[in-house]
Amino acid sequence: MADEGTETRAQRLARFRPASGMVTPRFSGIASFMRLPVLDPAEAAGEGADRVEIGLIGIPFDGATTNRPGARLGPRAVREASTGTRALNPVTGVAPYALAACADLGDVPVNPVDAAETARRIEAFYRPIAEAGIVPLTVGGDHFVTYPVLRALGAARPLGLIHIDAHSDTDDAQYDGSRLTHGTPFRRAVEAGVLDPRRCIQIGLRGSMDAADEHDWALAQGMRIIAMEEVCARGLPEVAAEARAVTGEGPTYLSFDIDALDPAFAPGTGTPEVGGFTTREVLHLLRALRGLDLVGADVVEVAPSLDPAGITALAGAGIAFEILCLLAERVAARI
Amino acid sequence: MADEGTETRAQRLARFRPASGMVTPRFSGIASFMRLPVLDPAEAAGEGADRVEIGLIGIPFDGATTNRPGARLGPRAVREASTGTRALNPVTGVAPYALAACADLGDVPVNPVDAAETARRIEAFYRPIAEAGIVPLTVGGDHFVTYPVLRALGAARPLGLIHIDAHSDTDDAQYDGSRLTHGTPFRRAVEAGVLDPRRCIQIGLRGSMDAADEHDWALAQGMRIIAMEEVCARGLPEVAAEARAVTGEGPTYLSFDIDALDPAFAPGTGTPEVGGFTTREVLHLLRALRGLDLVGADVVEVAPSLDPAGITALAGAGIAFEILCLLAERVAARI
Amino acid sequence: MADEGTETRAQRLARFRPASGMVTPRFSGIASFMRLPVLDPAEAAGEGADRVEIGLIGIPFDGATTNRPGARLGPRAVREASTGTRALNPVTGVAPYALAACADLGDVPVNPVDAAETARRIEAFYRPIAEAGIVPLTVGGDHFVTYPVLRALGAARPLGLIHIDAHSDTDDAQYDGSRLTHGTPFRRAVEAGVLDPRRCIQIGLRGSMDAADEHDWALAQGMRIIAMEEVCARGLPEVAAEARAVTGEGPTYLSFDIDALDPAFAPGTGTPEVGGFTTREVLHLLRALRGLDLVGADVVEVAPSLDPAGITALAGAGIAFEILCLLAERVAARI
Amino acid sequence: MADEGTETRAQRLARFRPASGMVTPRFSGIASFMRLPVLDPAEAAGEGADRVEIGLIGIPFDGATTNRPGARLGPRAVREASTGTRALNPVTGVAPYALAACADLGDVPVNPVDAAETARRIEAFYRPIAEAGIVPLTVGGDHFVTYPVLRALGAARPLGLIHIDAHSDTDDAQYDGSRLTHGTPFRRAVEAGVLDPRRCIQIGLRGSMDAADEHDWALAQGMRIIAMEEVCARGLPEVAAEARAVTGEGPTYLSFDIDALDPAFAPGTGTPEVGGFTTREVLHLLRALRGLDLVGADVVEVAPSLDPAGITALAGAGIAFEILCLLAERVAARI
Amino acid sequence: MADEGTETRAQRLARFRPASGMVTPRFSGIASFMRLPVLDPAEAAGEGADRVEIGLIGIPFDGATTNRPGARLGPRAVREASTGTRALNPVTGVAPYALAACADLGDVPVNPVDAAETARRIEAFYRPIAEAGIVPLTVGGDHFVTYPVLRALGAARPLGLIHIDAHSDTDDAQYDGSRLTHGTPFRRAVEAGVLDPRRCIQIGLRGSMDAADEHDWALAQGMRIIAMEEVCARGLPEVAAEARAVTGEGPTYLSFDIDALDPAFAPGTGTPEVGGFTTREVLHLLRALRGLDLVGADVVEVAPSLDPAGITALAGAGIAFEILCLLAERVAARI
Amino acid sequence: MADEGTETRAQRLARFRPASGMVTPRFSGIASFMRLPVLDPAEAAGEGADRVEIGLIGIPFDGATTNRPGARLGPRAVREASTGTRALNPVTGVAPYALAACADLGDVPVNPVDAAETARRIEAFYRPIAEAGIVPLTVGGDHFVTYPVLRALGAARPLGLIHIDAHSDTDDAQYDGSRLTHGTPFRRAVEAGVLDPRRCIQIGLRGSMDAADEHDWALAQGMRIIAMEEVCARGLPEVAAEARAVTGEGPTYLSFDIDALDPAFAPGTGTPEVGGFTTREVLHLLRALRGLDLVGADVVEVAPSLDPAGITALAGAGIAFEILCLLAERVAARI
Repeated sequence: MADEGTETRAQRLARFRPASGMVTPRFSGIASFMRLPVLDPAEAAGEGADRVEIGLIGIPFDGATTNRPGARLGPRAVREASTGTRALNPVTGVAPYALAACADLGDVPVNPVDAAETARRIEAFYRPIAEAGIVPLTVGGDHFVTYPVLRALGAARPLGLIHIDAHSDTDDAQYDGSRLTHGTPFRRAVEAGVLDPRRCIQIGLRGSMDAADEHDWALAQGMRIIAMEEVCARGLPEVAAEARAVTGEGPTYLSFDIDALDPAFAPGTGTPEVGGFTTREVLHLLRALRGLDLVGADVVEVAPSLDPAGITALAGAGIAFEILCLLAERVAARI
Repeated sequence: MADEGTETRAQRLARFRPASGMVTPRFSGIASFMRLPVLDPAEAAGEGADRVEIGLIGIPFDGATTNRPGARLGPRAVREASTGTRALNPVTGVAPYALAACADLGDVPVNPVDAAETARRIEAFYRPIAEAGIVPLTVGGDHFVTYPVLRALGAARPLGLIHIDAHSDTDDAQYDGSRLTHGTPFRRAVEAGVLDPRRCIQIGLRGSMDAADEHDWALAQGMRIIAMEEVCARGLPEVAAEARAVTGEGPTYLSFDIDALDPAFAPGTGTPEVGGFTTREVLHLLRALRGLDLVGADVVEVAPSLDPAGITALAGAGIAFEILCLLAERVAARI
Repeated sequence: MADEGTETRAQRLARFRPASGMVTPRFSGIASFMRLPVLDPAEAAGEGADRVEIGLIGIPFDGATTNRPGARLGPRAVREASTGTRALNPVTGVAPYALAACADLGDVPVNPVDAAETARRIEAFYRPIAEAGIVPLTVGGDHFVTYPVLRALGAARPLGLIHIDAHSDTDDAQYDGSRLTHGTPFRRAVEAGVLDPRRCIQIGLRGSMDAADEHDWALAQGMRIIAMEEVCARGLPEVAAEARAVTGEGPTYLSFDIDALDPAFAPGTGTPEVGGFTTREVLHLLRALRGLDLVGADVVEVAPSLDPAGITALAGAGIAFEILCLLAERVAARI
Repeated sequence: MADEGTETRAQRLARFRPASGMVTPRFSGIASFMRLPVLDPAEAAGEGADRVEIGLIGIPFDGATTNRPGARLGPRAVREASTGTRALNPVTGVAPYALAACADLGDVPVNPVDAAETARRIEAFYRPIAEAGIVPLTVGGDHFVTYPVLRALGAARPLGLIHIDAHSDTDDAQYDGSRLTHGTPFRRAVEAGVLDPRRCIQIGLRGSMDAADEHDWALAQGMRIIAMEEVCARGLPEVAAEARAVTGEGPTYLSFDIDALDPAFAPGTGTPEVGGFTTREVLHLLRALRGLDLVGADVVEVAPSLDPAGITALAGAGIAFEILCLLAERVAARI
Repeated sequence: MADEGTETRAQRLARFRPASGMVTPRFSGIASFMRLPVLDPAEAAGEGADRVEIGLIGIPFDGATTNRPGARLGPRAVREASTGTRALNPVTGVAPYALAACADLGDVPVNPVDAAETARRIEAFYRPIAEAGIVPLTVGGDHFVTYPVLRALGAARPLGLIHIDAHSDTDDAQYDGSRLTHGTPFRRAVEAGVLDPRRCIQIGLRGSMDAADEHDWALAQGMRIIAMEEVCARGLPEVAAEARAVTGEGPTYLSFDIDALDPAFAPGTGTPEVGGFTTREVLHLLRALRGLDLVGADVVEVAPSLDPAGITALAGAGIAFEILCLLAERVAARI
Repeated sequence: MADEGTETRAQRLARFRPASGMVTPRFSGIASFMRLPVLDPAEAAGEGADRVEIGLIGIPFDGATTNRPGARLGPRAVREASTGTRALNPVTGVAPYALAACADLGDVPVNPVDAAETARRIEAFYRPIAEAGIVPLTVGGDHFVTYPVLRALGAARPLGLIHIDAHSDTDDAQYDGSRLTHGTPFRRAVEAGVLDPRRCIQIGLRGSMDAADEHDWALAQGMRIIAMEEVCARGLPEVAAEARAVTGEGPTYLSFDIDALDPAFAPGTGTPEVGGFTTREVLHLLRALRGLDLVGADVVEVAPSLDPAGITALAGAGIAFEILCLLAERVAARI
């Protein structure tokens, strides 16, 4: 498109801005994430003018779901809802598209009936992105997809993790030995050496459990769990401070399961649990994480067919925008 | 109906009460606002026995909406939901229909495809109501309708404003020069001299923005903005106190955009924004405004077709009832 | 099934556990409450091996509803939603099925067009259950069903009551003398001598009223009302403490009307009122009631056809699980 | 309003026309049936200027429903949907408001928890209407409401009946002796002598049955049943011809249960049955009934909370309009 | 339960009847298929008193779905909808429960994340059922589940097939080699030798295709395809006659994909295609198949989360009842 | 992209094919019309390699709607639903992408609050497309958008019209003189000389009317109206034959209003009318129009927020695919 040699950073960033809602209405046009340009991932990760710094990517896979399905339709619904977001964060004042070149890199080509094959495809999709230093912001899909993303991003060195969720997702296996489900990604990632469990924190867990094993394993690895009850007792500022302390200075991944929200705020998810976060609390929590070395993030488990009013996709899009602001600040800080 | 000359105020008020749910069920009968009698506005504003003190009015217009439409269907949905409200406010103890003669004055006859013409019709509809001293409680419609209402109510002298909303609605123009949209009513009203910007306060703003211009203009006029973040930090009592201080003793208008509520509480609106108020917070805020000189109020942007469970219209009706209590106390205080 | 004589308690409890979601998925199989075994009530209350300690019972009756109907479909919807609950309370650590033998005892055979006849059937159904010392956890149905349940459970001695609701439900009569409606159960129960009004507390009342009579009667009997506004002002710990103080050591019934929740959390109910509890608050409140002598409990007024996202049934099931933990602890404490 | 003495019939009819959608939009204003004026039934049946010829009446009662409830909300939903109908039947060319003075007479004040009392109230409501010669077009409510309407209309002499439905509704009793349910109205009406069974025809029956008793009783009385299968085999023209032959010249009532339609066309009803009519077929059937001496008609069993897209109320309104054309022609023919 | 030795067939059949809706309402009680008793499959296939002749079985698996998921929730939704069916077919006069001992045998314990393992479990579940001569009526689940069912039922000799569907489902592989999907069951079954392609007929195909290969393969095997267009041109009686001719006297399986219906009649399915059957046509087609040697049947692809009005599950239940009548007649004919 | 000089037509067409659902699932990826490539309209109409032959275009405008709004959201919903269509028409055997180079040209940049300005923008958008000989297939938007499209396509010579709709849309003005509404496009187009009324035919009209004026005007111009009733009486083959006769050999536009379908098939539209077409009938009708000189077509009035099951957008997409087949054959025939 432009001649990279002479293009200034400002010109470059101007090419990767969302379409303006002041010119064309927000409900119009092809629905890409945040109304950003859609780029081929190979170009985005290439050496050319279209190299981006943050890539928004959909992984429309829910074949590892053990409960109600539908998260495969999440990326498309979040794309549509995200067209309502705009350029300036009204609270933090962050203008993410002025800080980092962002684009929609499309969806990973999943195989909906084969989790193992899909995991390979996801990892292969993210490897060049990770190698190009692009920070991926992923929209799932069920939580299983985080595992192969972590394999790609953590291949060079294990990552820290801030994991906001109603469930620990550190099961070993389900249904007589199935180890690749949306209940196991973080156990698999620790086993694969791509997560450093001592730099991992799980926030908001609250679902009733079949047994305490899942939590016991996580704790035994050195992961920190702040269950919902502790969040309520201590307050969000303390929780955020502890998240910062646990993850420290190192490279860290942020994974947000939409079922961390209360079903009133996010009915459209496969395994809702009563007594969850409000979106306002989540925004407060995320804003308290500014400055961390976030190398990637995701928002998962949005299931639009369980979401008649569309508020789950809307929450997913709003939270994705808030996370995007964190990622953009981190990109800008390292240039 | 009655002989005005000899009718006592109590008899008069008894004629303008909602149909009792203890006699006929609340789900039965023609759905008027609060199950109040339906009056012709000319009679209601006339010199006869049917002169009322508070008029509930629908403005079914959404032709100035720049996002998802549907608020034209708001008045009918709020009417239906409002049939569930009753005669006595359980918290404040206010019994509005014992304080003021209230009636449903029907809908303004809008032109759905012409905002300018509709603005003229709205203003013409409200002029005699304002001149008769009737306090109008309007249900929109999109937020544009507030502008011509303010033109009628503020014609004699500029008004103060308490504006609860996710957005500032002080844009100048959209789409290459359109100045009559639901993003511009308060700018137009200040320009028209019917609002005194130094007596205006906006509470709960939080939507992401295309740019900061909108807020900058409002602040430059002397309007006070308390964004959602500041509301959370300072608490509702302080916010209410500041609203009282800004608007002072003078005549004041109260405008409530349903998108001030979080999408979990009000999914049925064209431009929802995550991280908003709960209805409980809004009720607390409104109750803290007792005693102001409110000359009119509105609840706008309820879009029923985006509201599968009907909770947005329900919230609109509940908030309208709480506002009605404020208006009735003010009417009674001035008799 | 087993030979009761030689069966240990652990073996016995193992027979009354929910089907494990780790073996068969939670969305599969016949939907019974909590995926528990379905037992004939006569067997459950009999002397045989299938005697249970806690019985979950549906009462699919809404023929006493004066507003929007649909709660007759509540038991089936809550059964389905309850299949998502599991064996271990993640906050309190209570494992109810390890503490008490629980089963789904099916639905009371109601007559949908005859409230008086249904009341007789309900009382007849619960009598042997009460006499066998089984603690019933009922899912309604409209709130009228609590009255005949109380008649059965309180026949031996009047009960205390913790009643969480948006409405007092202590009306005398509606529509020209109808005394058996969902607005009257607690008045009828006090009149019948099965509730001790001085040991009764109502929490969260907030609906607008036709008149103050209803509350006045309750207060005159010595019942304690903590309206929503007082809940907000004093905080849940104080409210719970007062509930414990009012009900004291004696046998107590816990009745939860789903409309205690805000419509954002429970849209699917006949008489929603804005400004209600969050589910998180309710869970906190319930957990603060551990140790009371609860002889029965119910969750009523879930109306699935008004609940497009299913979150009301989900909230009902989650709250029922939390209550089940209370009941199981009480059972275990008395063995 | 006008001076009856000098008012011409044309002037008179002009006073009872729907509000024009060319002046005020169809979605605006209070929702009355067909946007007609709302009249007090006493005035409508009186000797004054407001005497009408056809009265549209809601009966919001579903307390006799043995299946899924919700039809009590039918009148309000059909009113709202009916605002989309206009003045001229495009097929038959009938302009009903030019033929007969029509008005919305509001709802019968039902007691939602007492079918027997409600039956008395309905009959009392319809007696003066029948005596004034007003032709009532009723919107239910469940099918039970037809029984007391027939008691009022058939008091002078038994009526013929054209009954379009998926079910015969000629049960004797349900649930151990309940005789007033929505499964029994036509048996009760025959027993009461207000229907002449040999002039009754039931069209479209198709629901699976508990036993054949219901049909056997009807046939034994001399009623004619044309089950859905026979409708398909013989075609609508033959069916209509037989309906005309059975009912003959005498006064006849037309009762339309919305579940006669297939669930694709009318999902919002308590007892849907697969394999029903299309709306187009029903319109054809009704148009073939022109010229009968119809003394009243109803459309029942619309249950809006089971009707997420609103098409059931829409079908009810469209069919009510088609029936209104029949009634208006009959009125005009007898002046 | 009973003493088989002395029990008459009539007594035996009386034990396997649906709960009567005349005693307990149809919306009450645990939702089993047709309100039939729930039996353990081992008992149902055993030598004891509970041996049944027709078993209704759910297979809640959709892990082979290549489009929108959700059919795993089909069995539960069809169970609930089926509680509205009754004992007597009003058209054919067949009373299935008087002809054959029927029971709900629960769900196959699937592994939601592993199609191959689930196929093994399904086949293992159906083997003893087939060997006991029980005729299974299966509710899916996606169409893949038919393949392992056919493996069990056709193990002894290849079966004929009447397959009513919008799609041929005879693909070879999808997504780079996945051979176990809901697009391949009939190809796999022919390859496995459990279907005799020359005795197979596919009716109603109409979906747009990626290529004609799928149909070409089926035709090359000798299968007969009557596409929707041919159905319309020739009429249902001819189509049914050809289906009878193709399948002949031999053992035949009937597979009904709910997407054979038009989306107006069955919106709740993963791959809807415009221009399909009405339910009335399907009922006519099925009734024309009386007398065939049907050894099993299924209704698949009902996806309740895509079915806001519940009409898809209702259609599935109504069609399952019609098929049950066919199966019961066949059972009775062979006793 | 490619070197146009040497590219064969087959290679060229291969570049404009939908993404294959056999490689990436149909629910994945950015939702463009039919999963076609998205092109800039300037490129598509240019001289370069990306010149296309059929352009699919969205016009997300509903600001001329006089009834329930929401059609502005139609293009996005139809894009999403259209991802389920595939490459080969199973009935006609037409493979449109093998016949013509097709692409998604995005949305016209409308001004949602200004119909006149939007009309100018639409016409300006379509002028170069028309001049380049690209055949546009438009998805609305309300029916007003057809007027400016016709202005662009008919500028060179007046067009014939096949108009399938429940309404004539030939009003003169509404609401005191508004002439640019969705009720007036065809009158405006005839007045502008871009439609030849004697070559215009309207099929399926059936909505009740305020008066017969609208039809009278159309008939007076020489337009042919085949109302729904006549369609039923004569059958689709005759109707299609007459449509062919009326439009003849000349250039013809095809306009399909989704409300031509019955509300059971298309609930999601602003002005539904009972008694409409089935989708199967529409497909039959369209297939009977093969060979006409279609220079453009549209599908309008899909309003997704009124379409909870998504079947309206699905019908719109299916009909658009059928029309696309017609257009592709016409393109191929003229090369």
